[in-house]
Amino acid sequence: MLGIRFPVIQGGMAWCSGWKLASAVSNSGGLGLLGAGSMTPEVLREHIRKCHQATDRPFGVNVPLQHAEINEIIEILIEEGIKIVFTSAGDPCEWTGWLKGKGMIVAHVVSSSRQAQKAEKAGVDLIVAEGVEAGGHNGREETTTFCLIPSVRKNSSLPLIAAGGIATGAGFLAAMTLGAEGIQIGTRFALTQESSASEVFKQYCLELGEGATRLMFRKLVPVRLAENPFRRQVEEAEARGASEEDLLSLLGSGRAWMGIFQGDLSEGEIEIGQVATLVERIQTVEEVMKEIVEEYLEALFKRNEW
Amino acid sequence: MLGIRFPVIQGGMAWCSGWKLASAVSNSGGLGLLGAGSMTPEVLREHIRKCHQATDRPFGVNVPLQHAEINEIIEILIEEGIKIVFTSAGDPCEWTGWLKGKGMIVAHVVSSSRQAQKAEKAGVDLIVAEGVEAGGHNGREETTTFCLIPSVRKNSSLPLIAAGGIATGAGFLAAMTLGAEGIQIGTRFALTQESSASEVFKQYCLELGEGATRLMFRKLVPVRLAENPFRRQVEEAEARGASEEDLLSLLGSGRAWMGIFQGDLSEGEIEIGQVATLVERIQTVEEVMKEIVEEYLEALFKRNEW
Repeated sequence: MLGIRFPVIQGGMAWCSGWKLASAVSNSGGLGLLGAGSMTPEVLREHIRKCHQATDRPFGVNVPLQHAEINEIIEILIEEGIKIVFTSAGDPCEWTGWLKGKGMIVAHVVSSSRQAQKAEKAGVDLIVAEGVEAGGHNGREETTTFCLIPSVRKNSSLPLIAAGGIATGAGFLAAMTLGAEGIQIGTRFALTQESSASEVFKQYCLELGEGATRLMFRKLVPVRLAENPFRRQVEEAEARGASEEDLLSLLGSGRAWMGIFQGDLSEGEIEIGQVATLVERIQTVEEVMKEIVEEYLEALFKRNEW
Repeated sequence: MLGIRFPVIQGGMAWCSGWKLASAVSNSGGLGLLGAGSMTPEVLREHIRKCHQATDRPFGVNVPLQHAEINEIIEILIEEGIKIVFTSAGDPCEWTGWLKGKGMIVAHVVSSSRQAQKAEKAGVDLIVAEGVEAGGHNGREETTTFCLIPSVRKNSSLPLIAAGGIATGAGFLAAMTLGAEGIQIGTRFALTQESSASEVFKQYCLELGEGATRLMFRKLVPVRLAENPFRRQVEEAEARGASEEDLLSLLGSGRAWMGIFQGDLSEGEIEIGQVATLVERIQTVEEVMKEIVEEYLEALFKRNEW
C-alpha cells in the first residue's frame, strides 16, 4: 500500500524529523515522515522540496491536526504533491475525507481502540496505535504497547502499525506477533545522525537509565519527558497539586524547541521514549535499518528452531 | 528446572491464589503459586497441605518479603516441604541464601534491571520481570513490559520470566520474542473459576474498558487499580496534592481484601492488570491453559509461513 520495502515507519517527530531524516529512512527501504508539528507552512514546503530531491522513494508528512496553521499546512501538502499523510492529535473526521478526495493515503495515530474505531469510521487507510511508553505527547488512557496492540487489532480491521517502545528487531517481531502489520519507530530514529535534534540532546538521551522518563502534565496534555531540572520543577508542582493554570504558566512556550533543537538540558523539555535505554549509540539511519531488519530475521529464524 | 510442561507461571496474587487456583494451574502443565501475601502462616499451611493433596505436580509459594510474619511464613515453607519460592516486594539478599541452603529454587520478582542485577548477586535462580501494566503493586520506575524485558535480558544472564500485560498465546510468544524464557500470568488467572476472588470482583473486571486501570498512590507504594468510587476519592486527593499521611489515612487497611475477596466495588481496591480488557469470560484454568498454548503454537506457525 505504501510502496515500501520494509514495514518500518519513522515517526514524524517535532524538531527531529526534517528532510534529512525522512529521506534517509525512505532511501533505506522504510517510510520517512516529515514532522509538520514543529514547522511553519513555508518551512514545511522547503523540507518537502528538499526531501523530493533527496529521494525518489515514497515519503510522507505527519500533521498534528491542532497545528495553528492547519489550513495552510494542508494546502502545501497538495501543492507539493504529497501522497501519504499521517494525522495525529485531533479529530480524524475533520480532514480525512477531504485528503482522500485528493488521492492521498491517510493514516491516523491513536492511543485507544475507541479512537481507532473513530478513525476507521472517518475513512482512514491505516491506524498507528501508540503505547504510553512512546516519547512526547501521549494518550490519556496510558495503555501500554503490549496491551494496546492486541486490543486495537480486535477492534479494527484496518492495517495496523504498532508504535511505542519499539527500537530493535526483536521488538519489531514482537509487535507483529501481537497483531501489527508494521511498526513506527520514533526514539531510535530521533537519535540518528540524520535527526535534526541537537547533538547535546542526542548524547543526553543515550545516557538515560531505566526509569528516566515519566509521563508529566496529565492535567494538561500528557507528555513523556526525561528527567532534567525543568521536569523536576514540574514534578514538584504536580506533587503539591498545582492547578492547570499554574502548570500552563510553568510550561510557558517553546520548551520542546529548547530541549530538543537547542539542546537546553536545563530549561527545555527532553521528549524521548522509554526505550531510549536500549539505544546504545548514534548511528546513521542506514545502519539502524540494517540492524533492525537483520535482528528481526534472526529472531524469526530462532523461533523456527523451537 | 521447575519440572513443568509449559513455561507458564501463575502469579501468586493476594486473595486470588489459594490452593484451588495453584493446583489447577499445576495440573494443567504450568506452575501454580500460592499467594502468601494475603495469608497468615497457619492459613498458608492449610493451603499448602490442600494443594499437595490436589496435585502431585510441582507448585510454589509467592512470598512478599515484607510480610508481617515473614519468619513464621518461611518456617512453614520448610516444614511443609515447599521446593519453589517466588519472593517479591523486598530485599532478595535477606532470605535467598538461606532458602537455597534448604534446597529450594528461588525466583525473585523485579521491575528494573537494577533490581534484577541485585537479585542475581543475591543468588536467585530465576528472575521475574514485571512491567507497569501489571495489576496490584508495581515498581516505581513505571517501565512497560515492552521496554523492560529486553533491558533485563541485556543486564542479566539468568532465566527470565516476563510478567505484566500477558494474557494470550500471542502475548506469550511476543514476550518470548523480547527475550524471556517463560511468562507469568496474573490477571487472566485471577478471573478463572478456580480463583478465590469474589465473583462480583471477577464480573466487574471482565467489563472494564481500555484505560480503566491506573497507577495510584505513587507517593506511597504504587498500585494499579481499576476505576471505582474508592479510586475516585484517591484521584481527587492526589490531584489536590495530598500528603503521604493524608493518603495513608484515606487508604486505611484491608482495602484489597474488601475489593477482591469481599467484592466491595465501592470501598475496596480493585487490583487488576491493564490486560483485563482482553479477558472475555470466566473460564476454568484448564480452558485458559489450553487456549494460551494453542494460540501460542498458532502464532508461531503463522510466523513460519512468512
